Amino acid sequence: MKLTILGCYSATPRTFTNPSAQVLEINNHIFLIDCGEGTQVELRRNKIKFARIKHVFISHLHGDHFFGLVGLVSTFRMLNRDTPLHIYGPKGIKEAITLQLKLSNSWTDYPLHFHELTSTESEVVFEDEKVIVKTIPLQHRIYCNGFLFQEKLGDRKLLMSQVGKYQIDKAYYKSIKKGKDVILDDGTVLSNKDLTGDPNPIQSYAYCSDTRYNEEKIEIIKDTTVLYHESTFLESHKHLCEVTGHSSAIEAATIAKKASVGKLILGHYSTRYGNIELFKEEAKTVFENTEVADDGKVFEF
Amino acid sequence: MKLTILGCYSATPRTFTNPSAQVLEINNHIFLIDCGEGTQVELRRNKIKFARIKHVFISHLHGDHFFGLVGLVSTFRMLNRDTPLHIYGPKGIKEAITLQLKLSNSWTDYPLHFHELTSTESEVVFEDEKVIVKTIPLQHRIYCNGFLFQEKLGDRKLLMSQVGKYQIDKAYYKSIKKGKDVILDDGTVLSNKDLTGDPNPIQSYAYCSDTRYNEEKIEIIKDTTVLYHESTFLESHKHLCEVTGHSSAIEAATIAKKASVGKLILGHYSTRYGNIELFKEEAKTVFENTEVADDGKVFEF
Repeated sequence: MKLTILGCYSATPRTFTNPSAQVLEINNHIFLIDCGEGTQVELRRNKIKFARIKHVFISHLHGDHFFGLVGLVSTFRMLNRDTPLHIYGPKGIKEAITLQLKLSNSWTDYPLHFHELTSTESEVVFEDEKVIVKTIPLQHRIYCNGFLFQEKLGDRKLLMSQVGKYQIDKAYYKSIKKGKDVILDDGTVLSNKDLTGDPNPIQSYAYCSDTRYNEEKIEIIKDTTVLYHESTFLESHKHLCEVTGHSSAIEAATIAKKASVGKLILGHYSTRYGNIELFKEEAKTVFENTEVADDGKVFEF
Repeated sequence: MKLTILGCYSATPRTFTNPSAQVLEINNHIFLIDCGEGTQVELRRNKIKFARIKHVFISHLHGDHFFGLVGLVSTFRMLNRDTPLHIYGPKGIKEAITLQLKLSNSWTDYPLHFHELTSTESEVVFEDEKVIVKTIPLQHRIYCNGFLFQEKLGDRKLLMSQVGKYQIDKAYYKSIKKGKDVILDDGTVLSNKDLTGDPNPIQSYAYCSDTRYNEEKIEIIKDTTVLYHESTFLESHKHLCEVTGHSSAIEAATIAKKASVGKLILGHYSTRYGNIELFKEEAKTVFENTEVADDGKVFEF
């Protein structure tokens, strides 16, 4: 997986920082997660091919997470896109986008599918052979979901030395990778476990923004490879977390620790702070493997 | 007057160019004209004080002229604005903005006044003691208005040498500036024309974007000091003007010439062109006093 941070600051776009948007590359998918104002420019700046974006996941309808969506949808149209676009987001997102397209008399020529979310329970919103995407219900000032992106368990790996030793015909490879034993011409049964190794470990990525501290989501994100968790405030302003529906760096790290994730990435910083390294310092007192997101930063895992 | 171009390219925001938005400073007003995506960042970059913007004029509801408005309205709220904001634009603009504020549960704490336009005749949309703003009906693919900003005729100018010569009391200055004669204590009548000079000439600015070539607007913008007229295409693509509802540089210059304006500023360039100086070259063959707008450029007149 490859995660490109297009924007990771809260509230308003500024000259050198962008509101929430990120791109997750996973098994040949390019998933866009949130889409604050200016996201289409950041996509260009980071050389993400527009045509490869087929799925957009919007956490909630605060402007710093979705005001860039209508412009992106319009730009796709102007670029003569014909590939369908799927948008997953809170109920209301369809009306907001379609009203603006209607007013500008510029309905898209490509298929535009809205998948409006209303459930407060985790649900599967996308699934194919290799990837599954589930919502992570979050607690914010308005209806809000994070998203959990999981690779599915892949095929078992052929041990080519063993396969060669028994001169197994290529026609059997597919079934062996699916876990089947092999019966040789002389009746000998070769056990699958002697011919294959375990599949690649399942990787997963959880996006949790925006949310106040709540432990209910821990069960859903348990053992996730990488967790992006909002940390709007430092300890000096932790009194603002509850009223604004946001988390501190320490709270994000506490969730990471309790969910036993592999790595924590912090983001959604309040623009009052000049030095985002302070978020890492505070979080590391609770959870060591912490990194800070920043606009244009790429994480590969 | 001072005109700051925040964006003057058509269609989509790109890494180094912005869609339509500009700021006109006139008699202590800061008028924002159009508001494409990213305008709030360009306002910051050009150090325009947010709180001084009290009037926003939106020509039409294509995204490259108004997708930045909802973000700006939201940011004003986050900055704890209390000054009223007046938005002038086509019918539908109120629904588009208020729907998005409603969905994000973030109605503005400051008074937000929409002035929705539907007339196809020129009308006065704003007026105070010193400035008047009228619509300029344009012909585009959807309902669209330009805007004419005019200073009102000011007071006559005191000729201080004459005023001193007759030792006229300061108490009379105001009435003299308004055009009154003065009667001295000995009964001598001093004619106003001997005491004053003409007021500053009336300056005016016309914004015409987006529009196909049409001569109906010439009467409205006749003798304007400065005309900003869209020129989306060069002659090489003039066949696209009619179908897209846009103008070429030559067409813009023709309007400038027929309206006897003082200066023409070109803008709203198609992003297919690399060198905007070509627009000036073509326009100058028809109208000499032509300049090209560019993002961040300032014109004082």
